Amino acid sequence: MAEWAKQLAGIKGVLLDISGVLYDSGGEGGGVPIPGSIEAVEKIKASGLKLRFCTNETQATRGKFVAKLQRLGFNILVNEVTAPAPAACRILKERNLRPHLLVHDDLVPEFDQLDKANPNCVVIGDAADNFSYKNLNEAFRILIGLENPILISLGRGRYYKETDGLKLDVGVYMKALEYACDVQAEVVGKPAKMFFQSALAEMEVEPQQAIMIGDDIVNDVGGAQQCGMRALQVRTGKYRPCDEQHPEVKADGYVNNLAEAVDIIVKQLHK
Amino acid sequence: MAEWAKQLAGIKGVLLDISGVLYDSGGEGGGVPIPGSIEAVEKIKASGLKLRFCTNETQATRGKFVAKLQRLGFNILVNEVTAPAPAACRILKERNLRPHLLVHDDLVPEFDQLDKANPNCVVIGDAADNFSYKNLNEAFRILIGLENPILISLGRGRYYKETDGLKLDVGVYMKALEYACDVQAEVVGKPAKMFFQSALAEMEVEPQQAIMIGDDIVNDVGGAQQCGMRALQVRTGKYRPCDEQHPEVKADGYVNNLAEAVDIIVKQLHK
Repeated sequence: MAEWAKQLAGIKGVLLDISGVLYDSGGEGGGVPIPGSIEAVEKIKASGLKLRFCTNETQATRGKFVAKLQRLGFNILVNEVTAPAPAACRILKERNLRPHLLVHDDLVPEFDQLDKANPNCVVIGDAADNFSYKNLNEAFRILIGLENPILISLGRGRYYKETDGLKLDVGVYMKALEYACDVQAEVVGKPAKMFFQSALAEMEVEPQQAIMIGDDIVNDVGGAQQCGMRALQVRTGKYRPCDEQHPEVKADGYVNNLAEAVDIIVKQLHK
Repeated sequence: MAEWAKQLAGIKGVLLDISGVLYDSGGEGGGVPIPGSIEAVEKIKASGLKLRFCTNETQATRGKFVAKLQRLGFNILVNEVTAPAPAACRILKERNLRPHLLVHDDLVPEFDQLDKANPNCVVIGDAADNFSYKNLNEAFRILIGLENPILISLGRGRYYKETDGLKLDVGVYMKALEYACDVQAEVVGKPAKMFFQSALAEMEVEPQQAIMIGDDIVNDVGGAQQCGMRALQVRTGKYRPCDEQHPEVKADGYVNNLAEAVDIIVKQLHK
């Protein structure tokens, strides 16, 4: 038995990344479930463990995103999902910020309630094809024109995997704007501590009672560990073998996929 | 008289940045000369000083670029210009590298002589509208698929000024790919030491005999100073008042424009 599996006493909650763990996004139907993941989610729910989906997905509103996952066969509800856009909205409101949005068209409705005239900050999400030269330049001009440039990024991921290959993620364009304007972005979403903490609060479990499962060694595994959680990396999604020799982050365990992780966790519960 | 003007004894050569010093690029005719700059170039040539144009321009071949400047009224020849693309070609040939090009369409002919099949490196220039999500993603996938990813960047500038406003430069996309692939780009062009040194060699003057004039505090002024040259910043092009309080780079002098700089330099020659 793997070392990590021997130390699961006290686990009360599981946090799951979605893209690359439950499914690979992209293609006609919006993605393909990773074998065994639909059943693994059911198994967690049946086990009595608390469950929270913790995603940096910003290509759609939570409603649309969850509807897609339901169509793919997953037992998932909107209020089980922690995502960056609603967290960013709270921050923008608190600080009276009027955002210029460089995000995916389908995410725009999440910001409907905010004043966006005469922007005094830029919010950047995974805009995919909206990351044109024209659009990035527009965001840059707004930022460089502000006396106090504020850049809020809905994540700092480098890339993710879709059915047709790897795709650049929001973090890459965040770095581009940081360099262009000599600013430091404020990151909402994984690996930000506050983001994991709000997911834990919504589950009502303590960090040491929770285990995160993700395909991103830095943002999922490293982020969760920094909050005091345990974290597993799955060998699906954007996983690459060199992740297991990452210079800074070491997962508590590596598993072939979500199904394997859940089998082991649930088995230990009944011991 | 400004302090820098008192210490010009021994100056034998002038290096001029082009965009933002000679002209502001963009718009219908390809740009607008900065008042007094056409005459300033003539004045340097008439003075007996050696002259070299030292540009990070990578939106066109040197031939096309120089033809545009001639149409605008400048006395300039192709063999007076030091530019990154020919320097990059030499490096690629020496190291048997087959580039994937992410550059402006008009720059592609500079790389005609190189084998580009089955690329083993990525060369990035100021691609402007070619910096689409699709194209950046393509370059990323090639890089991340290489065992030893080599990224060569034709400059590290943040932005430049066109007639209709500031535009993101190649350095921003270089940073994006560096972050995406966790690599460090090799920069050809200003502020690389080798680039200034080859311009000095072409002029046959020593660094301490040369003065660089540019609008970029880091890449023109800082780069030239690191090679042992003196350097002036003009208050045209991308110049911003806060440049004069730059935390790391202090120009030997600040002048309103090229005409003012050349007037002072030439006047001192005759003393």
